Amino acid sequence: MKIDGTPYRSVWVNQDGWSVHVFDQTKLPWSVDILRLTDVASAAHAIRSMQVRGAPLIGAVAAYGVALAVRADASSDALERDAAMLAETRPTAVNLRWAVERMLTRLRNTPQSERRRVAYAEAAAIADEDVAQSKAIAEHGLPLIREAGERKPGETVNVLTHCNAGWLATVDWGTALAPIYLAHDRGIALHVWVDETRPRNQGAALTAWELGKHGVPHTVVADNAGGHLMQHGEVDLVIVGTDRVTRTGDVANKIGTYLKALAAKDNGLPFWVACPSSTIDWSVRDGVAEIPIEARSAAEVTDVTGRTAGGEVVTVRVASPDSAAANPAFDVTPARLVTGLITERGRCAATAADLATLFPDLA
Amino acid sequence: MKIDGTPYRSVWVNQDGWSVHVFDQTKLPWSVDILRLTDVASAAHAIRSMQVRGAPLIGAVAAYGVALAVRADASSDALERDAAMLAETRPTAVNLRWAVERMLTRLRNTPQSERRRVAYAEAAAIADEDVAQSKAIAEHGLPLIREAGERKPGETVNVLTHCNAGWLATVDWGTALAPIYLAHDRGIALHVWVDETRPRNQGAALTAWELGKHGVPHTVVADNAGGHLMQHGEVDLVIVGTDRVTRTGDVANKIGTYLKALAAKDNGLPFWVACPSSTIDWSVRDGVAEIPIEARSAAEVTDVTGRTAGGEVVTVRVASPDSAAANPAFDVTPARLVTGLITERGRCAATAADLATLFPDLA
Repeated sequence: MKIDGTPYRSVWVNQDGWSVHVFDQTKLPWSVDILRLTDVASAAHAIRSMQVRGAPLIGAVAAYGVALAVRADASSDALERDAAMLAETRPTAVNLRWAVERMLTRLRNTPQSERRRVAYAEAAAIADEDVAQSKAIAEHGLPLIREAGERKPGETVNVLTHCNAGWLATVDWGTALAPIYLAHDRGIALHVWVDETRPRNQGAALTAWELGKHGVPHTVVADNAGGHLMQHGEVDLVIVGTDRVTRTGDVANKIGTYLKALAAKDNGLPFWVACPSSTIDWSVRDGVAEIPIEARSAAEVTDVTGRTAGGEVVTVRVASPDSAAANPAFDVTPARLVTGLITERGRCAATAADLATLFPDLA
Repeated sequence: MKIDGTPYRSVWVNQDGWSVHVFDQTKLPWSVDILRLTDVASAAHAIRSMQVRGAPLIGAVAAYGVALAVRADASSDALERDAAMLAETRPTAVNLRWAVERMLTRLRNTPQSERRRVAYAEAAAIADEDVAQSKAIAEHGLPLIREAGERKPGETVNVLTHCNAGWLATVDWGTALAPIYLAHDRGIALHVWVDETRPRNQGAALTAWELGKHGVPHTVVADNAGGHLMQHGEVDLVIVGTDRVTRTGDVANKIGTYLKALAAKDNGLPFWVACPSSTIDWSVRDGVAEIPIEARSAAEVTDVTGRTAGGEVVTVRVASPDSAAANPAFDVTPARLVTGLITERGRCAATAADLATLFPDLA
């Protein structure tokens, strides 16, 4: 997607043909710092320190990390050691381990003299496949926005989203934002309500930044506002991303998603979930009962980071000094509240039967 | 209620018998500054600058403002002039105008020589009546908490609340928090989930502070978390305040209240609204259609005020620099989602029939 008119991916190889660029996402939206990764240690640091985040992007950066490792030392010992180190940079990232394993499998079967070329090619393939997957989600989600527009000719389509499921979390396009970008690029008049997404403010900080830089009209709102907007006809559909979908269609996503799904249902509005097949957990049936919810640091609730009028980025406490806080990071939206899933193979209902029909090879 | 063991009201007369004390609520929760109001101008300033807020408290401070005015000049001309000035300090505060009118009616019929004594007595009566009303709400809400406790013997009752409807917004006790304080004081083991209440953070800043200072166990959560907590049995009942209730039981309250009501309904949990009869608007039938919702400054969403580790209170921008924000301040919870209303006359269903039965003199 674009930043002020220039197209970018979230990870790309420098024109030198080997060093790797990413954005330092810990600096967004306050400054656009492009990092140059020149060895496996810097790639590992970028993942560990959350300079890059979002499961698909982490996978792609880890793949390029393996390529950087092989460039420095193509021996099998070094390959195994560096790959193992990369795989440990984030404890629970499924895509991270998947990408490192894929690189390892490919390179173990490659003569040492060929490994450098093959490693960069395989990392590029991983990145390109992620872009293709996001683009497919964009294409399958586009009709939802187009049809919402056809129901109100001459008017703007209002989409509400929660958290950041945009191109910064993938290699390009994003998941929930992919259909939005495509609709905008195809000339459909749309406007996005961006939930700020407390406590980490990924909506106000990242989604708003992405949309603004690409030129998509949007407005940030407090997470509390969505129900009111829906009651008053200000939302035509909701599209969110997901961290895990059960085989029955329950959707784990950033905390607060469930409340928006309830409001969409209460107001008869479509609630769609952009869901690459890699996020479907075929081993889980009951999302509310079975999916463990990460309890993150209370400081994310009690403290907020932002920029002063003077330009300094500081952290301030917003909660009463002696009060404790709790911080469940995700919630589960029961399938009954989900209008449907937008996958790279097409749309389907959030039901075990429809998911199995669309993914007979995985179910 | 208490601050570190010492009982306070939110407005009281100094031992000198005439000057008036309030807390500077713009400084909470960072410092407890007690202001001394010595003339009508300082009372007006306290209301206008939101050093005091909450409809019942504003009414009481305005009444004492009239008393301070009369103390300085008991002539009818001065009385009318100062009362008119006080009535204009906040544009839409019903209690403010009601309190000033009541003082005027009483004082116009009082000989000038008696006015000072009568003014202080009438202001004290207004304050005492507000306390009595809050205490009655406490008594009528108490059984809800007690019965929730009886359904889980030996366990703590978890109450979720939104925004600040505590003693700081009234003269004492509060509305939504009144039954909570009474239950705590009566020895019922309870714990309060405090929604932070973006964008102005009245929950994290004021409700958490109040509860903490009185010794009530509580935990601050992001507004997004309530649905998840309810899904997992962590909430026994919800109690919120209200800014306006229609004659049919629709409830206008701080933005986000509607989402919590939806979640309570979805999880079969009681959703109660503490509602002094003064907040019932008998002229309105359809809350969603008829109640105008104040659109407040976008800066309340894009910027957050808090305290740095160094102790400085600063405002930081949290939203992406070029993004717009919208800030609807209230929403309307349809009566069908409200389990019932807790009024000073007792509890009733959120229906036109039940309200008319409880308030035949007003309906």
